[in-house]
Amino acid sequence: MTPTLGIGLIGYAFMGAAHSHAWRTAPHFFDLPLRPELTVLAGRDSAKVTEAAGKLGWRGTATDWRRVIEREDVDLVDVCTPGNTHAEIAIAALEAGKHVLCEKPLANTVAEAEAMAEAAAKAATRGVRSMVGFTYRRVPAIGLARKLVADGRLGQIRHVRAQYLQDWIADPAAPMSWRLEKDKAGSGALGDIGAHVVDLTQHITGQTLTGVSATLETFVTERPLPTETGKLGGVGGAETGQVTVDDAAVFLGRFTGGALGVFEATRFALGRKNGIRIEINGSAGSLAFDFEDMNVLQFFDGSEPAETAGFRRIIVTEPEHPYVGAWWPAGHGLGYEHGFTHQVVDLVTAIAAGEDPTPSFADGLQVQRVLDAVERSAADSSRWTPIRGEN
Amino acid sequence: MTPTLGIGLIGYAFMGAAHSHAWRTAPHFFDLPLRPELTVLAGRDSAKVTEAAGKLGWRGTATDWRRVIEREDVDLVDVCTPGNTHAEIAIAALEAGKHVLCEKPLANTVAEAEAMAEAAAKAATRGVRSMVGFTYRRVPAIGLARKLVADGRLGQIRHVRAQYLQDWIADPAAPMSWRLEKDKAGSGALGDIGAHVVDLTQHITGQTLTGVSATLETFVTERPLPTETGKLGGVGGAETGQVTVDDAAVFLGRFTGGALGVFEATRFALGRKNGIRIEINGSAGSLAFDFEDMNVLQFFDGSEPAETAGFRRIIVTEPEHPYVGAWWPAGHGLGYEHGFTHQVVDLVTAIAAGEDPTPSFADGLQVQRVLDAVERSAADSSRWTPIRGEN
Amino acid sequence: MTPTLGIGLIGYAFMGAAHSHAWRTAPHFFDLPLRPELTVLAGRDSAKVTEAAGKLGWRGTATDWRRVIEREDVDLVDVCTPGNTHAEIAIAALEAGKHVLCEKPLANTVAEAEAMAEAAAKAATRGVRSMVGFTYRRVPAIGLARKLVADGRLGQIRHVRAQYLQDWIADPAAPMSWRLEKDKAGSGALGDIGAHVVDLTQHITGQTLTGVSATLETFVTERPLPTETGKLGGVGGAETGQVTVDDAAVFLGRFTGGALGVFEATRFALGRKNGIRIEINGSAGSLAFDFEDMNVLQFFDGSEPAETAGFRRIIVTEPEHPYVGAWWPAGHGLGYEHGFTHQVVDLVTAIAAGEDPTPSFADGLQVQRVLDAVERSAADSSRWTPIRGEN
Amino acid sequence: MTPTLGIGLIGYAFMGAAHSHAWRTAPHFFDLPLRPELTVLAGRDSAKVTEAAGKLGWRGTATDWRRVIEREDVDLVDVCTPGNTHAEIAIAALEAGKHVLCEKPLANTVAEAEAMAEAAAKAATRGVRSMVGFTYRRVPAIGLARKLVADGRLGQIRHVRAQYLQDWIADPAAPMSWRLEKDKAGSGALGDIGAHVVDLTQHITGQTLTGVSATLETFVTERPLPTETGKLGGVGGAETGQVTVDDAAVFLGRFTGGALGVFEATRFALGRKNGIRIEINGSAGSLAFDFEDMNVLQFFDGSEPAETAGFRRIIVTEPEHPYVGAWWPAGHGLGYEHGFTHQVVDLVTAIAAGEDPTPSFADGLQVQRVLDAVERSAADSSRWTPIRGEN
Repeated sequence: MTPTLGIGLIGYAFMGAAHSHAWRTAPHFFDLPLRPELTVLAGRDSAKVTEAAGKLGWRGTATDWRRVIEREDVDLVDVCTPGNTHAEIAIAALEAGKHVLCEKPLANTVAEAEAMAEAAAKAATRGVRSMVGFTYRRVPAIGLARKLVADGRLGQIRHVRAQYLQDWIADPAAPMSWRLEKDKAGSGALGDIGAHVVDLTQHITGQTLTGVSATLETFVTERPLPTETGKLGGVGGAETGQVTVDDAAVFLGRFTGGALGVFEATRFALGRKNGIRIEINGSAGSLAFDFEDMNVLQFFDGSEPAETAGFRRIIVTEPEHPYVGAWWPAGHGLGYEHGFTHQVVDLVTAIAAGEDPTPSFADGLQVQRVLDAVERSAADSSRWTPIRGEN
Repeated sequence: MTPTLGIGLIGYAFMGAAHSHAWRTAPHFFDLPLRPELTVLAGRDSAKVTEAAGKLGWRGTATDWRRVIEREDVDLVDVCTPGNTHAEIAIAALEAGKHVLCEKPLANTVAEAEAMAEAAAKAATRGVRSMVGFTYRRVPAIGLARKLVADGRLGQIRHVRAQYLQDWIADPAAPMSWRLEKDKAGSGALGDIGAHVVDLTQHITGQTLTGVSATLETFVTERPLPTETGKLGGVGGAETGQVTVDDAAVFLGRFTGGALGVFEATRFALGRKNGIRIEINGSAGSLAFDFEDMNVLQFFDGSEPAETAGFRRIIVTEPEHPYVGAWWPAGHGLGYEHGFTHQVVDLVTAIAAGEDPTPSFADGLQVQRVLDAVERSAADSSRWTPIRGEN
Repeated sequence: MTPTLGIGLIGYAFMGAAHSHAWRTAPHFFDLPLRPELTVLAGRDSAKVTEAAGKLGWRGTATDWRRVIEREDVDLVDVCTPGNTHAEIAIAALEAGKHVLCEKPLANTVAEAEAMAEAAAKAATRGVRSMVGFTYRRVPAIGLARKLVADGRLGQIRHVRAQYLQDWIADPAAPMSWRLEKDKAGSGALGDIGAHVVDLTQHITGQTLTGVSATLETFVTERPLPTETGKLGGVGGAETGQVTVDDAAVFLGRFTGGALGVFEATRFALGRKNGIRIEINGSAGSLAFDFEDMNVLQFFDGSEPAETAGFRRIIVTEPEHPYVGAWWPAGHGLGYEHGFTHQVVDLVTAIAAGEDPTPSFADGLQVQRVLDAVERSAADSSRWTPIRGEN
Repeated sequence: MTPTLGIGLIGYAFMGAAHSHAWRTAPHFFDLPLRPELTVLAGRDSAKVTEAAGKLGWRGTATDWRRVIEREDVDLVDVCTPGNTHAEIAIAALEAGKHVLCEKPLANTVAEAEAMAEAAAKAATRGVRSMVGFTYRRVPAIGLARKLVADGRLGQIRHVRAQYLQDWIADPAAPMSWRLEKDKAGSGALGDIGAHVVDLTQHITGQTLTGVSATLETFVTERPLPTETGKLGGVGGAETGQVTVDDAAVFLGRFTGGALGVFEATRFALGRKNGIRIEINGSAGSLAFDFEDMNVLQFFDGSEPAETAGFRRIIVTEPEHPYVGAWWPAGHGLGYEHGFTHQVVDLVTAIAAGEDPTPSFADGLQVQRVLDAVERSAADSSRWTPIRGEN
């Protein structure tokens, strides 16, 4: 019999639903060395968490995350709460000997992230594993992109351009939300979506950023307070609140291998819903990806003769592609949530193998340091700002 | 408490896995009036069906589908076996008072399909429901296409062009499979994939085909027998077998409203993996869909001024789009299997409401009659051949 | 000094303007062995032809094409009149020892085309050359497509799908024009645009069609007469006229090498302006072209490993591509009229070399026979109809 | 009779050929108030300029540009020489009372450009006109983009992202050229191609940049000297030379209306040949353009209901679109050189009307100041640098 892995999930909103689906679904498509049990779901509101547990498939509930950590039948704590609570929960869980999967961004500040990375490193020496949820790494086309770079098909990387484009607050009448308040969200587009493209470009290239030059912008500084609380995209009333985070972040960067990076994260790109766009130009080849066509990777092979050279539209749905063989026959595309399932597969596999999964908390900390450098550069006339902790 | 709906599934290969996922997943995202229970999975090989049940999440197993039909805790029989067994199983289930979901094509012959449609009509009078699994109808972009036609946005339909393009046997060295034998598969590309585009174009336009002119072709008539049996895409050996079905079907058609249709179904379109492509031109607007970019519908609105008119790339991932609101925020694309989940949602909803779901067995029969007319036209020098049973 | 080639052009509407541009432009970009002189422009209306000659750059004018043929300083007669006059003019010119470039379709009937091909064959024995203006052959992407097939990159051709989609009479209120009258235009979409895709697919594959099964349709049989005469797209008045040609033609075909063809030509594809779309699937590779993106050829190389296989978007603007080196640096796209310039280059080069240019009048006749078979099949319940004259 | 406009063209390389084609072609498609005469072509090498004049259609030649300026039959001097000679020639021509069309970038330094703008302003008071050749403004899709912004269809502009991507020196073995030497070219990718996207984004938005933060990079600092001199893309030998300009420029910017700009110009984007890509997001709509598909403008109309909203692929080949009506019927795309013809049309029209054409030398100076700010920011740790001369 496959041994079990008891899961305790903290938070049941968007990310909680996505993680629940992944825990439920992974064992039906992949041969996992441990069988995840949806043991307990935690949330502060007793009625709501009970309802969510029923809907999402969890056996038990808790209204205090500390109760989850104490349970013997919980082997892994999955943290899906807002960023300002990550450090406390994750560190406590690691110290209690629980493996931890923590949503991104790892934390709202570098200091918190440092504490978390330290706790993770200590825990690892006792065989306790941790991972930060940069889920998009597990989109098959991204996996293929990283492989092509690692295989040398791009040669020396020269250009990285990456955008994360959304438009859900392009309308000035869109109401306030906790995501627009600095004390809860840490930052705006920068940390929420910019973090993803920082992680993805570093992941694909196998390089890290060494410095940045940045500008942040808040286009709409005052918004109506929502008449129905807590609902993203609710309706605004007559009263208004202050937006205290960035609406958009743009920055230049340089990678360890010398490539130039150009980054943009915004929630004001009207018409772009979840447009994660990454292009990489190397001396031997180029890549392009757009999440709005997520099963496709474009690849230019510089070794082709000019007569027949061109960007290839690789439909990343072949058995030869990362993760794909476990799903459907060739050509049957995957969706957004499959990345979460793949994340669970890789995490469970690493735990069973006694290995540290990636992205680690240290990786999450490094991304946090990039975001921090972006904010410091923006506050200092866009001056070039090295990433701290890079040696 | 939500009442339950006991499911018995017959068959556990590709379609069995897709249906299992749908039964498991639907209640976690949609508010279903009945809670599906994965009661029993049936297959002829005891060891294999037991293994499959464990993997796919079924509580019990059976090696004879008749045992499934007899069970009191089974309310619905889901038929995922090859086409030559559909009629016997589905009719028996309906007569036993079980709702039936039957994979497409409804049957291998018109006679079988007629018997099934008759049985379904009788059963309906007793409140027993039936549905044929033309799953692609439940892709959100297809749902939106149908809605735009129904809303009059296309005006009078004039042209329908539809292709289902695959390439998995383009290589003459690809081995034999039951799908290439007429006695098991009924037909080749025509019934396997052509049936889908016949159904989809009729579904979107709200019209049916009245006649066809057709040509069938078998490019590779002899193929190596697989050394490992039963595996699609296995390796061929030295012995060969006869391909007795069509490799490709091309046909012209005319719809009840006067539109011209041009259809193509092939497994020899090198580079196209699951290319379901549909274009519709009307007097007021046009549509284009390609499953290789399945979250997108292209729409041309003829009422726009020429200066700014153009095909719009609608990313069908907004809450306003069919089925989408139950899943993720705007822009987070769905995948192939979501159609199966939507199918289950619509079926369960209809059963609870005491309504006949669509596509009905009568709809499945009508598609069968189109396929039959295609074969008769191809056998008669492509002569125009009316669809039987159209009055 | 480069010897001259005196040109006499008959007709000065759309095609006349395109040909004039080509004669003027070719020597400035290509090294031609003969220098074209824009000697004389002919048209029936003296005032209009004089104005056109001034605008289009012609030295002299004539109101009777016979005067053009008699002139000693005219070496080549370029026929840009409606199809019902082609035979008389072209045959007379050839008999007078003038080289002839004749717009497509070669003629309105097979009989006329036969007479023209015969005259051309006779003239060729005296060193007098002739060419029919299937200009799209000279789009660089089409030239590359033909080369890839000839180089064996597609292997054995299995599928050809070709559409020529326009929408300029999709509106039933669009007025009558000579193009909608059978006695002037010969046929409708079939001969006007269907002829192009018949020629192009035969040209690219190096094969000819052996038979067809077809349906023709006239969606709008009565249209307002234009209040301003002679203007395509003019405004219609209260009186109406009968449309006596097809609005759309759809047909299946088979090529000499066994490939299945699916063809469509229509002026009712709302939103498609000049959509010439050609796809070819072979055993070793596939191609796709769309004139709405005319500088691009898509190519799928079946020999690539599955991991990185995909349709390549070849931007056909490199010096290595047909005709391109004479124009601009890489990446600087060409437009519609460049095909006419390339046509002139190839024609002049062949004349100077004492060779017969292609497409010949015999090629034009063969296309005419395909169109004829399409009409006969459509008139005979779409029955499969062999192309006459194919041995 | 239409009065003439005598043209003297200085330089006969790539730009000289493009300008010659425009002067020759414009009167055949547009009704010009003045008829351009290709009077004299100037170049230093007598044999070469004579050959070029024959090929490009010029009546006379000169080996000293000063002779061109002195001629009474020259009304307009067209400057197509390298940037370091623009100021001297253009100023002398203006002072001699000749209208001037000067290729971009206006000059190699801000000081030169200031002198030129001053000379142009003085000349304008005497009715002498001047224009700088930012030709891409005259691509119809760009004209439409500007119109949509001016019509308010985008609302308030928030984001501008613009890239000019080429790859002709991505290979380190590509040889030296004058374009890689600072004293001749002024700068590298920045001035050669970055200037275009600076101008285009300002032109489309109707706003100017107020400041930038920038980084420049030279990836390959030493290259083989060409064995054949003077040929772009020639073959390199054993000796090497120093690259003294930037290979790539990336910068952030801010527009007068508050929009954030992100710019990139590079010759190292492998697979991109002439990729001018511009996206603009406003509060009411968005635009996207890519020169690799130059006849298309993508437009997202934010006022559409979410159900049917999407980027429209406007094929900018309708009579309603800028410049298009003079060419071919709908759907027949234009190419690279048409922009030059449109430029001539607008210039001649302005001269005849006694109006100052745009872009003016002052506009060219303003772009020069942006480039200068980019270089100063890059030299000062990417610090935010205001554009000089903006008040």
